[in-house]
Amino acid sequence: MVNVAILGATGYGGVELIRTLGLHPEVRLAYLHSETYAGKRACDVYPHLAGVTTELRALDVAAVAAECQAAFLALPAGLSLEIVPQLLDKGVRVVDVGPDFRLHQAALYPQHYGFAHTQPAALAEAVFGIPEWHRKEMAAARLVAAPGCFSTAAILALAPLVADGLIEPGDIIADGKTGLSGAGRTKLTLPYHYAEAEADVCAYSVGGHRHQPEMVQELQALTTEPVSLAFTPHLVPMVRGILMTCYAKPRGGADLAAVRASLARRYEGEPFVHVLPEGQQWPHTKWTAGTNHCFLAAGMSRDTGRAIVVAAIDNLGKGMSGQMVQCLNVMLGLPETTGLAGAAAYP
Amino acid sequence: MVNVAILGATGYGGVELIRTLGLHPEVRLAYLHSETYAGKRACDVYPHLAGVTTELRALDVAAVAAECQAAFLALPAGLSLEIVPQLLDKGVRVVDVGPDFRLHQAALYPQHYGFAHTQPAALAEAVFGIPEWHRKEMAAARLVAAPGCFSTAAILALAPLVADGLIEPGDIIADGKTGLSGAGRTKLTLPYHYAEAEADVCAYSVGGHRHQPEMVQELQALTTEPVSLAFTPHLVPMVRGILMTCYAKPRGGADLAAVRASLARRYEGEPFVHVLPEGQQWPHTKWTAGTNHCFLAAGMSRDTGRAIVVAAIDNLGKGMSGQMVQCLNVMLGLPETTGLAGAAAYP
Amino acid sequence: MVNVAILGATGYGGVELIRTLGLHPEVRLAYLHSETYAGKRACDVYPHLAGVTTELRALDVAAVAAECQAAFLALPAGLSLEIVPQLLDKGVRVVDVGPDFRLHQAALYPQHYGFAHTQPAALAEAVFGIPEWHRKEMAAARLVAAPGCFSTAAILALAPLVADGLIEPGDIIADGKTGLSGAGRTKLTLPYHYAEAEADVCAYSVGGHRHQPEMVQELQALTTEPVSLAFTPHLVPMVRGILMTCYAKPRGGADLAAVRASLARRYEGEPFVHVLPEGQQWPHTKWTAGTNHCFLAAGMSRDTGRAIVVAAIDNLGKGMSGQMVQCLNVMLGLPETTGLAGAAAYP
Amino acid sequence: MVNVAILGATGYGGVELIRTLGLHPEVRLAYLHSETYAGKRACDVYPHLAGVTTELRALDVAAVAAECQAAFLALPAGLSLEIVPQLLDKGVRVVDVGPDFRLHQAALYPQHYGFAHTQPAALAEAVFGIPEWHRKEMAAARLVAAPGCFSTAAILALAPLVADGLIEPGDIIADGKTGLSGAGRTKLTLPYHYAEAEADVCAYSVGGHRHQPEMVQELQALTTEPVSLAFTPHLVPMVRGILMTCYAKPRGGADLAAVRASLARRYEGEPFVHVLPEGQQWPHTKWTAGTNHCFLAAGMSRDTGRAIVVAAIDNLGKGMSGQMVQCLNVMLGLPETTGLAGAAAYP
Repeated sequence: MVNVAILGATGYGGVELIRTLGLHPEVRLAYLHSETYAGKRACDVYPHLAGVTTELRALDVAAVAAECQAAFLALPAGLSLEIVPQLLDKGVRVVDVGPDFRLHQAALYPQHYGFAHTQPAALAEAVFGIPEWHRKEMAAARLVAAPGCFSTAAILALAPLVADGLIEPGDIIADGKTGLSGAGRTKLTLPYHYAEAEADVCAYSVGGHRHQPEMVQELQALTTEPVSLAFTPHLVPMVRGILMTCYAKPRGGADLAAVRASLARRYEGEPFVHVLPEGQQWPHTKWTAGTNHCFLAAGMSRDTGRAIVVAAIDNLGKGMSGQMVQCLNVMLGLPETTGLAGAAAYP
Repeated sequence: MVNVAILGATGYGGVELIRTLGLHPEVRLAYLHSETYAGKRACDVYPHLAGVTTELRALDVAAVAAECQAAFLALPAGLSLEIVPQLLDKGVRVVDVGPDFRLHQAALYPQHYGFAHTQPAALAEAVFGIPEWHRKEMAAARLVAAPGCFSTAAILALAPLVADGLIEPGDIIADGKTGLSGAGRTKLTLPYHYAEAEADVCAYSVGGHRHQPEMVQELQALTTEPVSLAFTPHLVPMVRGILMTCYAKPRGGADLAAVRASLARRYEGEPFVHVLPEGQQWPHTKWTAGTNHCFLAAGMSRDTGRAIVVAAIDNLGKGMSGQMVQCLNVMLGLPETTGLAGAAAYP
Repeated sequence: MVNVAILGATGYGGVELIRTLGLHPEVRLAYLHSETYAGKRACDVYPHLAGVTTELRALDVAAVAAECQAAFLALPAGLSLEIVPQLLDKGVRVVDVGPDFRLHQAALYPQHYGFAHTQPAALAEAVFGIPEWHRKEMAAARLVAAPGCFSTAAILALAPLVADGLIEPGDIIADGKTGLSGAGRTKLTLPYHYAEAEADVCAYSVGGHRHQPEMVQELQALTTEPVSLAFTPHLVPMVRGILMTCYAKPRGGADLAAVRASLARRYEGEPFVHVLPEGQQWPHTKWTAGTNHCFLAAGMSRDTGRAIVVAAIDNLGKGMSGQMVQCLNVMLGLPETTGLAGAAAYP
Repeated sequence: MVNVAILGATGYGGVELIRTLGLHPEVRLAYLHSETYAGKRACDVYPHLAGVTTELRALDVAAVAAECQAAFLALPAGLSLEIVPQLLDKGVRVVDVGPDFRLHQAALYPQHYGFAHTQPAALAEAVFGIPEWHRKEMAAARLVAAPGCFSTAAILALAPLVADGLIEPGDIIADGKTGLSGAGRTKLTLPYHYAEAEADVCAYSVGGHRHQPEMVQELQALTTEPVSLAFTPHLVPMVRGILMTCYAKPRGGADLAAVRASLARRYEGEPFVHVLPEGQQWPHTKWTAGTNHCFLAAGMSRDTGRAIVVAAIDNLGKGMSGQMVQCLNVMLGLPETTGLAGAAAYP
């Protein structure tokens, strides 16, 4: 049994980790951190966690290190920056879902996140947390930086095609639709107020979203040509789920069969990434709710000849907590499905 | 390992059983029945069951008996009637969630279900499937008749108060609110069409609903006075969940503390029934989604002095498939939480 | 043309008044008040009001009186208390949808609203704002106190039966289900956060809700026997709409036909209250969205013999802004449907 | 007063026409057609139409012509084909929202709609029903073919930029998100079953959708270069509303200011098309619910330099019935806002 900590245990990502790790046979939840609710029990904050009487604690890095071999960090952007190196120093392995260690280039942080990156050593050793693409480095990693939810969907959809040279990497469009849990629980703002958000769809961050640089970084690693990508997120009236619709120009005569084959070949045997066979349904976010699964399907525009790849994930599952657990499984040498088996509760 | 069959595996109850039993360590899904989809694989009908390649089969009672020690039946009303005795005869233990064996009085069937009951022997041995109230008989039972979703909620809320003589049993009101998955997947009728059902609340079956006789039957077993109950179900725009608001007149000077104590005492130690402490939140259906949990809380009208008990369950969980698995666990002598641990995926 | 003011123009009730009055042929919107957004135009706060360029203004009672003959007040509880007498003094007729002038007994305010009532004269002249029951007094009134949304539904459903002596007035249960717009737009609290509220039903204010005293007041005026009523509100995941399910014991041998006849007779010819014929559908909140309509239907429990009356309204329509406009129409001697014609945008 | 008929009065488009025209001061609803419900009153089929006691009638073209000067057709694809010429022959002016007369090239019908076009004369005179682009021809037209809902959104967003030569017309992407009312009320299929559609987003008709040829037709009329467009529709869990996100490559050094100016200039003074100023919110479908309004805003991808135009409409409003009424207003020489004034009921 590995003792783990969750820092930021009462956000939506944290509570999903509590649920998921509660069913994980090789892990014990030893340290649940919350500044806001320190001193309360988890089930006092979330009554649906009827059996989880663990007390929430303020952050004490020494105590985390004394009690835990691994830590999951689900903290607001910028908060992991100073904490992660301390944990690493004390021998705690870290899976961080914040953005603080995702971008290899420290220089990108001021522009996209508004802070200067002060931890180049930790940044240099961080492994980008998509097991399907970084499994090997991850196995030995001390620090995994799990990607943003949109990025996971876009990278899973596009990376095989870029890697196989089937699409023009310099002219990609990724149109994302997300449920509203992505905004978390602490900022109770008008766009997430039920009466405003229900029965509504809107675009936001048009022109540039924080997840874009990490999409570009991961795709760029697969090609020598410059990658350029227009990503537009949209809010849709549901809680969980991301649907990413990606448009790219085929190259070298790649047809739909070639695109499908690329996806199918790349994810063959993957327990969590499912490429739908030709002619079957298109991915539904509902298929992924509460799970670590991703569904992919490919098409091609009859009019423009654009290749179209659609990815569905749960933003709190494969887009966040599920993937974090999958990363830890890789780090611990466990089967990746440990604690993550099971389909969505449908409907 | 116990081999089990699911008859009616492609309804919403069936697919929830596939999911739940897929995580059950003592059970193997050996026979998935569907008349409509016989010959297809489960994952062809429900692509989210990506790993479940088991072939769906038409009904063959002999094959079920040859391959399975237990069977879950999730069939439309009236279809279990002839099948259950055959399964029992061949030594298969049965958990049936249809109504065919719930009512002890055969005479009630023509009125409430439109068919005459032709299987008095099986009816006589059927145990009503709420483990919290029938655990002992269930352990040895060959046939368990799991109750309707509304009934489970109403009985869990009211039975302790009737048993303890704290309320007038002859004047109970149960106002139920249900998500729309209760109607299943096969009858695609207008009230369940998205555009009609969204943003709408309505009452239905006002005056008398099929689940009422079983509520009365179970409460009547706990008192010598006549039980009378007005139950009105309502559709609310969500998929899963039942909230049951029960109103009853206290008797013998019972105050709110007595009502709460009765509930708390009765369900102390129960892994799935949680009585909220005074002053805490009222039960939310969202806390129960995808689980076998039930949350209860009690209040009292300042104006009329009516006792009010609110119960929340997932109609497909404790209201259906979760409870069926809990019943099987009792029948097999397993811990009741086997395969049912875990909290709701929240939010 | 009558010049009118809206005080509290940027809450959900206010913006609904802007919409409704924008289509009213006899009224001109002369003064839109908002403290929060003073100086902005209405269409800056609510871009969907594309054509409404009127500037929002801080409160200036003298200016309101100088420019307007009537004022609609949609302010938080307690804020109308001092403003209304000033408006009346200056000759402005008032329709106030806050609670400050609804309860005839000043003594009830400290208990239910936490403030002492300091304006006995205005309170004494206020007419309770349900035109179907107070049309005559309203025609000459200077001050109309429009009821709460739940109260409107409950009173419309129950008043005929109390007035006709068909039910026991001392043992009524009103189970209400409301959409989430009732909580307004200014307090962005967790229960109204999309991710928490979606797919959820819960009860609240169990035991006693602020609207209860006004329900009792209005029913009590129709009978000499003491009225007692247990009202429990519930949140359901939709924006607009209230469904009120009322349970009462018939008396004097009243059967379902008598109950229905009482409702039908009382509301015959009413343009906004529709009693559904026997055997037709039960009221749906969706039928009322964006309108001033109310649908009623009656049933009777086969088991307990309880009479059941179900009412559906839009909490922001007949439950708030629509009714306020109807009240003004009465005060101005206009046809009550002026500016309120039209059915719901369905679906 | 102009007497009008609605053919197909009980679909969602038809019932929206009944509502809208019920408030139109220059029109009288003289003939409501429904094959399914012939003989019933409108309020029997839709109880929310409490006052509309008009009897629904089977189709009798002679009677329509005898009683009406104009007819709105909201019939399934292919059904208008034979009816329209008969109505024209008898002097009835027609607004048809089916696809039968939208495409100028008869040869496209077999491929996209599965029927050969047999009415070349009527097809030749049909005016495409977007008043903002075809106002002049429409004024004198006998037959207006109102576009599909997606097409309206895409054309309003893109046409100014194509007309002004600001984007490459040969490489446009239109990613559409639609509420579920677009599927209508008669085919009750699984994707529109509440339990399946709630909390779900999916793409459909990937590669080619029926509305695409009319988008191309209208844009092609504005440029000599070949237009090519990849349109992918998505279902989102709401009833009304379309959000269309359009991506196109600027040309000739067009920057964001030029794109915005093109939209603003083209729609200046239009009562129903609103171009949001820079820095304001992005269009929300909720702003348009139940109205004929369209909101537009433009952005530009920082990464790829793609121009992005977002359009929001109500698929049953500007996307269907509202636009049909606007077209009739043009045909009758009435102000275009007649019967269409008013903002959305928000929230």
